[in-house]
Amino acid sequence: MAKELTSKSENYSQWYNDLVVKADLAENSAVRGCMVIKPYGYAIWEKMQAQLDKMFKDTGHVNAYFPLFIPKSFFSKEAAHVEGFAKECAVVTHYRLKNDPDGNGIVVDPDAKLEEELIVRPTSETIIWNTYKNWIQSWRDLPILCNQWANVVRWEMRTRLFLRTAEFLWQEGHTAHATKQEAVDETFKMVNVYAEFAEKYMAMPVIKGHKSENERFAGALDTLCIEALMQDGKALQAGTSHFLGQNFAKAFDVQFANKEGKLEHVWATSWGVSTRLMGALVMAHSDDNGLVLPPELAPFQVVIVPIFRNDEQLNQISEKVDMIIEKLKTRGISVKYDDSDAKKPGWKFAEYELKGVPVRLAIGPRDIENGTVEVARRDLLSKEVVNIEGIDEYVENLLDDIQTSIFNKAFNFRAEHTTEANTWDEFIDVLKNKGGFISAHWDGSPETEQKIKDETKATIRCIPFDSKEEEGKCIYSGKPSKQRVLFAIAY
Amino acid sequence: MAKELTSKSENYSQWYNDLVVKADLAENSAVRGCMVIKPYGYAIWEKMQAQLDKMFKDTGHVNAYFPLFIPKSFFSKEAAHVEGFAKECAVVTHYRLKNDPDGNGIVVDPDAKLEEELIVRPTSETIIWNTYKNWIQSWRDLPILCNQWANVVRWEMRTRLFLRTAEFLWQEGHTAHATKQEAVDETFKMVNVYAEFAEKYMAMPVIKGHKSENERFAGALDTLCIEALMQDGKALQAGTSHFLGQNFAKAFDVQFANKEGKLEHVWATSWGVSTRLMGALVMAHSDDNGLVLPPELAPFQVVIVPIFRNDEQLNQISEKVDMIIEKLKTRGISVKYDDSDAKKPGWKFAEYELKGVPVRLAIGPRDIENGTVEVARRDLLSKEVVNIEGIDEYVENLLDDIQTSIFNKAFNFRAEHTTEANTWDEFIDVLKNKGGFISAHWDGSPETEQKIKDETKATIRCIPFDSKEEEGKCIYSGKPSKQRVLFAIAY
Repeated sequence: MAKELTSKSENYSQWYNDLVVKADLAENSAVRGCMVIKPYGYAIWEKMQAQLDKMFKDTGHVNAYFPLFIPKSFFSKEAAHVEGFAKECAVVTHYRLKNDPDGNGIVVDPDAKLEEELIVRPTSETIIWNTYKNWIQSWRDLPILCNQWANVVRWEMRTRLFLRTAEFLWQEGHTAHATKQEAVDETFKMVNVYAEFAEKYMAMPVIKGHKSENERFAGALDTLCIEALMQDGKALQAGTSHFLGQNFAKAFDVQFANKEGKLEHVWATSWGVSTRLMGALVMAHSDDNGLVLPPELAPFQVVIVPIFRNDEQLNQISEKVDMIIEKLKTRGISVKYDDSDAKKPGWKFAEYELKGVPVRLAIGPRDIENGTVEVARRDLLSKEVVNIEGIDEYVENLLDDIQTSIFNKAFNFRAEHTTEANTWDEFIDVLKNKGGFISAHWDGSPETEQKIKDETKATIRCIPFDSKEEEGKCIYSGKPSKQRVLFAIAY
Repeated sequence: MAKELTSKSENYSQWYNDLVVKADLAENSAVRGCMVIKPYGYAIWEKMQAQLDKMFKDTGHVNAYFPLFIPKSFFSKEAAHVEGFAKECAVVTHYRLKNDPDGNGIVVDPDAKLEEELIVRPTSETIIWNTYKNWIQSWRDLPILCNQWANVVRWEMRTRLFLRTAEFLWQEGHTAHATKQEAVDETFKMVNVYAEFAEKYMAMPVIKGHKSENERFAGALDTLCIEALMQDGKALQAGTSHFLGQNFAKAFDVQFANKEGKLEHVWATSWGVSTRLMGALVMAHSDDNGLVLPPELAPFQVVIVPIFRNDEQLNQISEKVDMIIEKLKTRGISVKYDDSDAKKPGWKFAEYELKGVPVRLAIGPRDIENGTVEVARRDLLSKEVVNIEGIDEYVENLLDDIQTSIFNKAFNFRAEHTTEANTWDEFIDVLKNKGGFISAHWDGSPETEQKIKDETKATIRCIPFDSKEEEGKCIYSGKPSKQRVLFAIAY
């Protein structure tokens, strides 16, 4: 191995931290809780962004950019929102530094105090609805379907790379509609976009559902989400889409004249995914040898490693490789050719396994003689020798197969780790000994949910869209319930 | 006109402000000095980003992301840098808000004061070089060729949309090299990338050159730049590329073992362009009817307006239009079809002129009969009637022609507004009565440059790469000079 990794079974949490750092995805910075996203990690994020951005545009959205700072007073305008967001946040109080008159370097200039403090955005509903007020007069101005790619800051005390950082990158969609139905439809549309992205591109199966009241976004009437299962049996919320009703329109006095000329408050949604998806991607598929990346999101899908003793051999191999690369590129496959002589092939094999490159081709002098190439697939760690003739088609099919096979593996894992519990003892037993999602009846009260959380750390991840009506009794209170909900211990 | 615009000749500055707001590019926000970039403006910025990003990647660069916040102490580490940047900036001093015990909404929690204040990045050399320290041990780790797309904050007292805002979007490249020559080469390579982008995509001719010492980036040994001329005769710095020598490597103790195993400090460059380019684009080409966008950066290149009295006519027209759209899209041309009946054609014509859409097609019932379409080009405000047959090829050629013609117009304007001045009186006369670039001899001293600036507001925009050696006398001091430099009053 190029770099040693803690094994998953030994210490899952350490395995994750090691992997993120050693595979060059991200690292901690000198600023508490803020990460540096390294080029290899950022390349994956860029692929995620490009695909999501396309899906947003295909569903009629446009991008815009709103200020990083939000006046403190804006947070007080929406009652539930202030409770949820105006707490742990970065507060700008001054706008100037100066040389310390006592010669101790630079200090904050006390004369440059802001009249009103500015908050570094933890989310942008308030500043955006304050802006929309000027954009919306009549029904003709609606809908507004804006998205923003931005950094946000939430002052987290316990941080983990990608999963929970003080600063993170995300997109936040903020839409304004003339009718409730249109806003509700938008909320569902976007959770479906997220689900499609997660499953088709991240190869990560997700459950779509409603959040319970306790887990709802601060200021929302309904929060829809996609929930994924990680390999340690913990759930991860991978995206949310909020129906905000008229709360923000009322808080910021955003009204429109309807077709009859009557003033009405505007209906709102917001929806977002963040660099947290990077953490989900790592934890959903990777193994003790390193990352396992779905081909759709790999910075490069194929790496070619030449096996050679001297320049003459390398030249012969490179000639063949150039042809292969050209053929692969014609099929839209991204390739890296690592012909450096600073490292041995064995080191390279381990390095690209660590980096999760889906397919590795190795070519030595014997392959040149035989017209063959060794093809290794990262997900199964299997190898076979294949004819160079037709290798491009072979690799194209292989990449499709890997994408599907990674998804299926995660899908089967989730199926095996989704358990129905009908009694409190069963519930506790599954949580302790198996983990994963637990499908159980719940009486629908926030109090019961809170008690279950206090006793077990498990929360309701969602009330799945496809949860069927079924008479039952709450596993905790024994009170009647009409459908099962999904519990899990979550990231 | 859909919205009234101040004319350029009446008040250039007001014309610019009106245009940026009325063409839906950007507007001021509730936060002093911070702008909202509206969807139409952001769509242009996205096109700029996409093209620049491609050019960066084609020259071997990768993207990464570094923290928004920089510890205050980092700024003190590079002596010249602290003078230039650690002054007017946003300072985060606290990390929590709380409910005011006296019931006055939310207040900053005095118990949540940071031990060390954090500065919202005005530029990222310090945090990046502090990170590079851990990435670089040996010559094998070099070069590092990173770029970052990010928001930055500089607390400007007098702000103008796009040209000077407290928060702006930009990219900042930060590279690390084993040798001085390699770093110098990189600095030139990137200023050439910027020049190519400005000329080929923005259709904006630029002068490449060195900054004088007074105008150099804080911490650089040499600053290269591209300078453009706006229609009011003022210059605008559109991009800079800095050779930083070993200054930041020394400040952050970044050394590498060279091939002989000896430790050396790393050589650095940084380079950036920002949303300021949006201001340059507007001011370089637009007119009293609104924006004039080069086809390469227009959010949509063609708008089609149907002229109809009833649904039957609209249906007939739309059938033809659908065919035209398909043909145009096949050629990679972006099209908007505005068939709404809420606005009259005349209103639409004015609106799309305001928005700078390069080509407008109008089709009415008579056109359907004759198999024709009216084609209007935005830059010349000219119209002609053309056969629908072959319209796609016609429009493709027309777009090329518009791109070239916008560039040529700006190029000729610059040529007419670049004047050699050989005496102080001439210099003053040109500044007062003609504006534009003044090519003049200068004795090379910062003091003279400062005096000229104090007396006239004109600064040395650059010492052009192609400035030939020539004996002369400084227009101000009369001292000997070996080459002309380019003066102008600048944004």
